[in-house]
Amino acid sequence: MSQTLNIIKVGGGVVEDAASLARLLEQFAAMPERKVLVHGGGRLATSVAASLGIESRMVGGRRITDEKMLQVVTMVYGGLLNKNIVAGLQAKGLKAIGLTGADGDVIRSHKRPPIALPKRGNGEGALDDGTEQTVDFGFVGDVDKVNAQFLSELIEGGLVPVFAPLTHDGNGHILNTNADTIASSVACALAGHYDVTLTFCFEKAGVLRDADDESSVIPLVNEEQFQRLMAEGVISGGMIPKMENAFDALHRGVRQVIITHSDNIDGSRGTSIK
Amino acid sequence: MSQTLNIIKVGGGVVEDAASLARLLEQFAAMPERKVLVHGGGRLATSVAASLGIESRMVGGRRITDEKMLQVVTMVYGGLLNKNIVAGLQAKGLKAIGLTGADGDVIRSHKRPPIALPKRGNGEGALDDGTEQTVDFGFVGDVDKVNAQFLSELIEGGLVPVFAPLTHDGNGHILNTNADTIASSVACALAGHYDVTLTFCFEKAGVLRDADDESSVIPLVNEEQFQRLMAEGVISGGMIPKMENAFDALHRGVRQVIITHSDNIDGSRGTSIK
Repeated sequence: MSQTLNIIKVGGGVVEDAASLARLLEQFAAMPERKVLVHGGGRLATSVAASLGIESRMVGGRRITDEKMLQVVTMVYGGLLNKNIVAGLQAKGLKAIGLTGADGDVIRSHKRPPIALPKRGNGEGALDDGTEQTVDFGFVGDVDKVNAQFLSELIEGGLVPVFAPLTHDGNGHILNTNADTIASSVACALAGHYDVTLTFCFEKAGVLRDADDESSVIPLVNEEQFQRLMAEGVISGGMIPKMENAFDALHRGVRQVIITHSDNIDGSRGTSIK
Repeated sequence: MSQTLNIIKVGGGVVEDAASLARLLEQFAAMPERKVLVHGGGRLATSVAASLGIESRMVGGRRITDEKMLQVVTMVYGGLLNKNIVAGLQAKGLKAIGLTGADGDVIRSHKRPPIALPKRGNGEGALDDGTEQTVDFGFVGDVDKVNAQFLSELIEGGLVPVFAPLTHDGNGHILNTNADTIASSVACALAGHYDVTLTFCFEKAGVLRDADDESSVIPLVNEEQFQRLMAEGVISGGMIPKMENAFDALHRGVRQVIITHSDNIDGSRGTSIK
């Protein structure tokens, strides 16, 4: 029987606000040992970029990372947010260590080539006319491999890895990488070493039967129920790729994926996907 | 006989410029294994702060770190510079890992209380009239302890620690800490585990007999010679505290301190202090 490992992914909104960060640190510190935190930080990056006169451009909710924006996210994710979270966890007695993919070569990625995406109504005025656009996301990394051996050595040494959403390409370049992707990649890589629960925290209480009713959380979803809930239209929009990623992680050895509110990172409420 | 460990401290000027950073990475990668890099970054912090409309204030060459400036140095030192250096060293095949003092609780410090300093001509218009001024440096950390056990475990695991000039107070706060101080503190702490050579790189070829002649490097200085060279006026100004720090490190177990140009980090030229 493997040891249990909890991997918690929190969005930028949680770690950028002092009060919600304090709650997160408290709850994360209280979780049993063997844990990993992965954080975002997009809103703060947008705000620091704006202060520097750099405009943020998004396509389909994903950031275009040109050279200047790469500097901003490296500063904000790898420096400001990551180091403050690590210091905050240390104050709670956790032996936290901040990591980007470059540190210890822990996550290697490659720069995403320009890709063809359907033009669709994504709140940016594009029309869903069936045509495609080629999008160059710039210095964005798609994960190639996670050094699970090194990570498990850190964890067995009592350390608590705290990941900023940055990786490297092995040729000297930092790349901006989606925090959900980092969390899943780390979870799948460590599934060979641990009994992994992967928790995605967001602004809703879980997968809701009624989008307007936070008390309508569906506590448990398996793949068959997911297909039915999609057919019924209960699960739609941005929740579909989230759920697909969750099932993908399960197929790759993760024991359980939880989708829950960031005020509830221990997953005692929320939707369990297994 | 202990293993040899090289600790190299480079100033911000070296790592902020692409060409000199490339030379540094090349030379550092070529050094024998068991090594630590400590970097500064003050000029880039000043420039990023200016772009954000934040003024840099210095007293006696040291930065006043208010809350906004702390955010800037946490971004620039812990994020932008540290992560790019780590990625650059990884590309040379080194298993580099970026650290602030908060990561793994590796360097604990306390916030420097306001201190009385002699008012003197430091290029800021103050007069050397014998009076004192009380200076609050703000969020600046004076080092209390270095976790030598953890550091040596990383090094024996084949990792190459790369330190940003930031520490933490154990109560959740990152503190700005002089890079020379970090280098000496780490060197002294590891002197119990290794045969340590500590190299300070700066813009001169070493301790010069004639400040205007880069070829007049004094190759070797012991404490007796230092006293004589001070009496003769050959060593003066900012070199005196540098040398005093060097002898302090020797008294605390470091085998050798080298002061040299950043183009020569292997210390084959420069001034050896022992």
